[in-house]
Amino acid sequence: MTETDVHPIAGPRRYRNSTALVENSDPVWQAAADNGLIGIAVDPESNNRLVVPETGHAFANMCSCAYLGLNRHPAVIEGAVTALRETGTIELMTSTTRIRPTIQARLEEELGDLFGAEILLSTTCSTVTAGILPLLASGHLAEGGPRVLIFDRFCHFSMSYVKAICAEESLVLTSGHNDLDFIADACREYGSVAYVADGAYSMGGAAALDGLLELQDRYGLYLYLDDSHSVSIMGDKGQGFVRSRTAPGPLTTIVTSLGKGFGSGGGVAMLHSRAQAEFLARHGGPLGWSQNLSVPTIGAALASAAIHRSPELGELQARLRANLDHFDALLPTPLAGNGLPVRRIDVGDADRAVALSAELFRRGYYSSAVFFPIVPRGKAGLRVMIRADIDHDELTRFAGHVTELTADLPSSAH
Amino acid sequence: MTETDVHPIAGPRRYRNSTALVENSDPVWQAAADNGLIGIAVDPESNNRLVVPETGHAFANMCSCAYLGLNRHPAVIEGAVTALRETGTIELMTSTTRIRPTIQARLEEELGDLFGAEILLSTTCSTVTAGILPLLASGHLAEGGPRVLIFDRFCHFSMSYVKAICAEESLVLTSGHNDLDFIADACREYGSVAYVADGAYSMGGAAALDGLLELQDRYGLYLYLDDSHSVSIMGDKGQGFVRSRTAPGPLTTIVTSLGKGFGSGGGVAMLHSRAQAEFLARHGGPLGWSQNLSVPTIGAALASAAIHRSPELGELQARLRANLDHFDALLPTPLAGNGLPVRRIDVGDADRAVALSAELFRRGYYSSAVFFPIVPRGKAGLRVMIRADIDHDELTRFAGHVTELTADLPSSAH
Repeated sequence: MTETDVHPIAGPRRYRNSTALVENSDPVWQAAADNGLIGIAVDPESNNRLVVPETGHAFANMCSCAYLGLNRHPAVIEGAVTALRETGTIELMTSTTRIRPTIQARLEEELGDLFGAEILLSTTCSTVTAGILPLLASGHLAEGGPRVLIFDRFCHFSMSYVKAICAEESLVLTSGHNDLDFIADACREYGSVAYVADGAYSMGGAAALDGLLELQDRYGLYLYLDDSHSVSIMGDKGQGFVRSRTAPGPLTTIVTSLGKGFGSGGGVAMLHSRAQAEFLARHGGPLGWSQNLSVPTIGAALASAAIHRSPELGELQARLRANLDHFDALLPTPLAGNGLPVRRIDVGDADRAVALSAELFRRGYYSSAVFFPIVPRGKAGLRVMIRADIDHDELTRFAGHVTELTADLPSSAH
Repeated sequence: MTETDVHPIAGPRRYRNSTALVENSDPVWQAAADNGLIGIAVDPESNNRLVVPETGHAFANMCSCAYLGLNRHPAVIEGAVTALRETGTIELMTSTTRIRPTIQARLEEELGDLFGAEILLSTTCSTVTAGILPLLASGHLAEGGPRVLIFDRFCHFSMSYVKAICAEESLVLTSGHNDLDFIADACREYGSVAYVADGAYSMGGAAALDGLLELQDRYGLYLYLDDSHSVSIMGDKGQGFVRSRTAPGPLTTIVTSLGKGFGSGGGVAMLHSRAQAEFLARHGGPLGWSQNLSVPTIGAALASAAIHRSPELGELQARLRANLDHFDALLPTPLAGNGLPVRRIDVGDADRAVALSAELFRRGYYSSAVFFPIVPRGKAGLRVMIRADIDHDELTRFAGHVTELTADLPSSAH
């Protein structure tokens, strides 16, 4: 016998509402599925040529975060292999707070040199965030007791996901995107405030960093910035957008991913002191569990770090910039010229976005249809990521297809 | 000028309290650090011989979750290398909800065969949990609307961590450990209930599975069980403790890690339908972000899956059982004879646990001192994990040292 009498136990849904999320987005996901745009399994012949084995359909991935192509760099692959051969192990399967392989300690040092920071490593950037943000809220990362957390409305889900956990420790607010006035008002009202946002946004654009640093000077605003989408592609050592302009400090934490431009995997916190790194390894929840960065991932990251110290990094960054300039000239979008690799082609309606993505896929290009809740309602479109390893003529052809297929839209859309 | 006037903004601290956590545990962590027991960087010559390069100190790791030693199996290492060579990539760096390498699709199939389930893969088991539990609370994994979630008091932190997020969607309760009466009462009171727990517990022991299945039959209780600590080591194909006794179904989800007994890395959900796996890939938050299982990890897991289908699995399991029997005979602890690989040597006082761990480390054995909040207050001790690849005589020597160093304690402690 199954009890079917349901009691009114629904929660307050202040920070998430699964029902609204599913009801709004599932029909569009289903349309994407019906058009063969999700669940695609491919053999990667290169980043520009993925092949679906059953059908032989080949296409270019216009939606990979491997911005410099380092995920396929022969030295990076060999770095992974060498690490496996030298350590003879996949990982130690012990909490790295207690025991870690020297190869991981070496990676911490090398990243510390590149980024000018004390380094804490974990499996993913969202794990780093899950470990740090509640302790930022409770007042354990800086003086002054519990800290009001303001999440930018457009910050990555990996940050907004933990709002309810942070709200156990302090007041959690959501600001408009880059809304400096809102943040300044909160600083005046509460005194002890942190702002949580992307540096370079996953859906394009960047944080209002100059204004934020001014608020930090004036009010002691803590900045927690995830710069996963600009690391490697900006800065003479690939420090990224935020780290090129400011340093980790008592009021600044920068986190990033090694699984995008860097070409390997794992999450990184750039911290201002060894004591802070040790504190987080002890008390940062998932940062201390025995889920480790694997040895091949560490080896790949070490090889990528060596590339970051060599002239090759500048060459790859220049190639990416040239591709961005080329694309922006062919297909000007609102984000054109910002130096960051994410572009959006807004079409407004989610069904239209899916249809456009489907037709481009048929023509040999995968660019994600993005829709609520990935982007705001009515702002559906395509997400395109430009990489250093896309051929110039390929970009020309792709832009030509998009131009043709969106000719009826107002030009501001692209 | 920095604003120093702090307002009373502390949160309700219903599901976490960082201040209490840090105040209680940091002094013990510091004692562990002072005794050289954390932050150890080693070169792994084998799982039984880790060497600290600066000092030359060599020790056996008695605290690794690599229960069958598959993390160092030559075929597993070669599996990782082959996958790197064949795909020429670390990972695609695209959301796997959209595009994933065929090698990942192949791993899903092979695990599906081994575990008799539809498989959803992610970077870690805690990511799987973070994606699924809020949707279980909101009523999206089973009929009947929002579901009261009961977390076992001893469930792994990776589950209790998301309590506050689940509480956004439904009522969240905490039960005593294996407290079937509490769960039955809640089923009668609320009708729609899920119980969240470990299958085999990370700190030893197991779920009260027979009783739970009875409550499922009687009240439609949903079971969400993390069986990371028994997969590979139990079952003719390594299905683990829970999957050997029950199957994923409309009211049962089993999750596990491939980064322990399995010898590779990543998190797995064993689901009952493809539709459920697709639903979670779309709406399960971190399950859809572009943080992927890396290609070498997938390759290692494929090689381990092949071992799971071969007679070698049974041989490794038998070797582990023999080591467990040997250890339990030498050093009977309350968990002796349960067939699971985690043992606890309780000493009560946290400082004593740290001192014991330090002396054993000096003698060449690392076993973690565990203390609040890892285990309840007053229950500090050592956590020891028995593996298949520990030498018989090594175990004898280790047990001898522990016996000598705990001779003054009541025999019930060990």
